[in-house]
Amino acid sequence: QILELSAAYFEEGAFTGKHIVITAGPTQEAIDPVRYISNHSSGKMGYALAQAAANQGARVTLISGPTNLPCPERVERIQVKSAEQMLEASLQQIGEMDIFIASAAVADYRPSEIAEHKIKKVDGEEQMIIKLVKNPDIVATIAQHPERPFTVGFAAETQEVAQYAQAKLARKKLDMIVANDVSNTNIGFNSDNNAATIFWAQGSHDLDFMSKSNMANEILACIKAQLS
Amino acid sequence: QILELSAAYFEEGAFTGKHIVITAGPTQEAIDPVRYISNHSSGKMGYALAQAAANQGARVTLISGPTNLPCPERVERIQVKSAEQMLEASLQQIGEMDIFIASAAVADYRPSEIAEHKIKKVDGEEQMIIKLVKNPDIVATIAQHPERPFTVGFAAETQEVAQYAQAKLARKKLDMIVANDVSNTNIGFNSDNNAATIFWAQGSHDLDFMSKSNMANEILACIKAQLS
Repeated sequence: QILELSAAYFEEGAFTGKHIVITAGPTQEAIDPVRYISNHSSGKMGYALAQAAANQGARVTLISGPTNLPCPERVERIQVKSAEQMLEASLQQIGEMDIFIASAAVADYRPSEIAEHKIKKVDGEEQMIIKLVKNPDIVATIAQHPERPFTVGFAAETQEVAQYAQAKLARKKLDMIVANDVSNTNIGFNSDNNAATIFWAQGSHDLDFMSKSNMANEILACIKAQLS
Repeated sequence: QILELSAAYFEEGAFTGKHIVITAGPTQEAIDPVRYISNHSSGKMGYALAQAAANQGARVTLISGPTNLPCPERVERIQVKSAEQMLEASLQQIGEMDIFIASAAVADYRPSEIAEHKIKKVDGEEQMIIKLVKNPDIVATIAQHPERPFTVGFAAETQEVAQYAQAKLARKKLDMIVANDVSNTNIGFNSDNNAATIFWAQGSHDLDFMSKSNMANEILACIKAQLS
C-alpha cells in the first residue's frame, strides 16, 4: 500500500517535473587551519524541505553546509563549507532550476584572510582582532540573476521580525520569505519544531508552532499557490 | 567470558581507586545569540581516553565541549560550551582528582563581548571587526594550583611540533604533554587515527600512526609509569 501511495506521489506530485534547489545548514568560515566562525543552524528545516519536495515529485538538489544529518531519500546532496563555496554551487544550478529555496544560515561575514598556520597565542597580548569582510549574498545574487528561478529566502531574527523580513523581501527582490524569531528557544535552530510567517509581495501567511516536516509541506503549498 | 574479563579489570585495573578528569572536544565562544567561534576538534581523542581509563578501573569525569559523541560507558560527563565554563567545571574537581588530562581544544580567545541580539549586516559596511580577549588557560591554571593533580596537556601544532610542545610543558608546569601535528590531515582532528609524541621533563616517547583507542591506552601507560 505504501508503494502504491509512493507511486501515486511520483505520478501526480505537486512538483513533478520541477527541479528545486535548496540550501541548508550553517556555513563555516575558516580563520586558520583549525579555527572557524559558524552559527547554530542545524540544517533541519532545509533537510525537511528537501525530503518534502522529493516526496511531492520534485527533482531536488540540496546544497548543504556542515551538518550531522543524513541525506534525505531521493535527494542529490552537494556538501560545502563556506559561503563562497555555497554561492558557487548555487550559481552552477542557474538555468537548471525552477525554484531556489535558501534556508541555509549563511555567514554574513568571513575572515578577510585565512592564516596558513594555526595562529599562535602571544604571551602578553591580551587582545586579538579578527578582520571580517562581507560574504556574497547568495539568495540576492540568485534572485537578481537574469535567469532567476522562483526564489524563496529565510530570515532568522531576534527582534522586529516582520519588519526586517518584509524589508529583506523587497531589497533582495525575492518572491517569498519565511521569517522566524530565533530568540524563542522552543523553535528554530536545532529544534524539531518551528513557527514562522511567510511573506510575499501581496500577502502573508502565519504558520503556528508545528514540526519542521509539517512546516516544509506548508511552505511548499504556499510556493505552489504563488506559482499557479 | 567478557563479564569475567570486565570484572578482572575492575578488580585489578591499572587505575583502580583513581579519579581521572578529562576535558574533550572544542569550546564554542559566542559572538551573539546565533554566531560563535569554534574549532575542528571532534572530541574523539578525549572520549577514547575516557573509555580507556574507565576500562582500567578509574572513576572518570569527562568535561566535554559540544560534540556529537555518545557518553562512554561508566563515565560521568559534564557538558559545557565556553572555555570559561570548562575552567569552572575543572576547578570544581580540584582536591577530588588524581589525574587531569586536558585534551580539549580550548579557544585561546573569545569575543570581548557577546551581543544580546543577532548582529545585523549593515548595508555599505564591507568590513567588520571582532575584538577578542584571551581566554583563561585551563591546563596551566590546574597545573599551577596548590592542590594540583598529575597534569597532562595536549599540543596541536602545524609546525615545529616538538619545540612548541616542550616549551609549553615547561611554561605551564605540566607533568606531561602529548603533541601532534594537525597539519597532517590523515591524523588528528576528526580522524579515528592519530600519531603523536609524548614529552615529559626527562624524556619522550613516540606514538606512531595508530587508532585513537590504542593511543589512549599508550598515553595511560605512560602516565602510569610516571606515577609509579
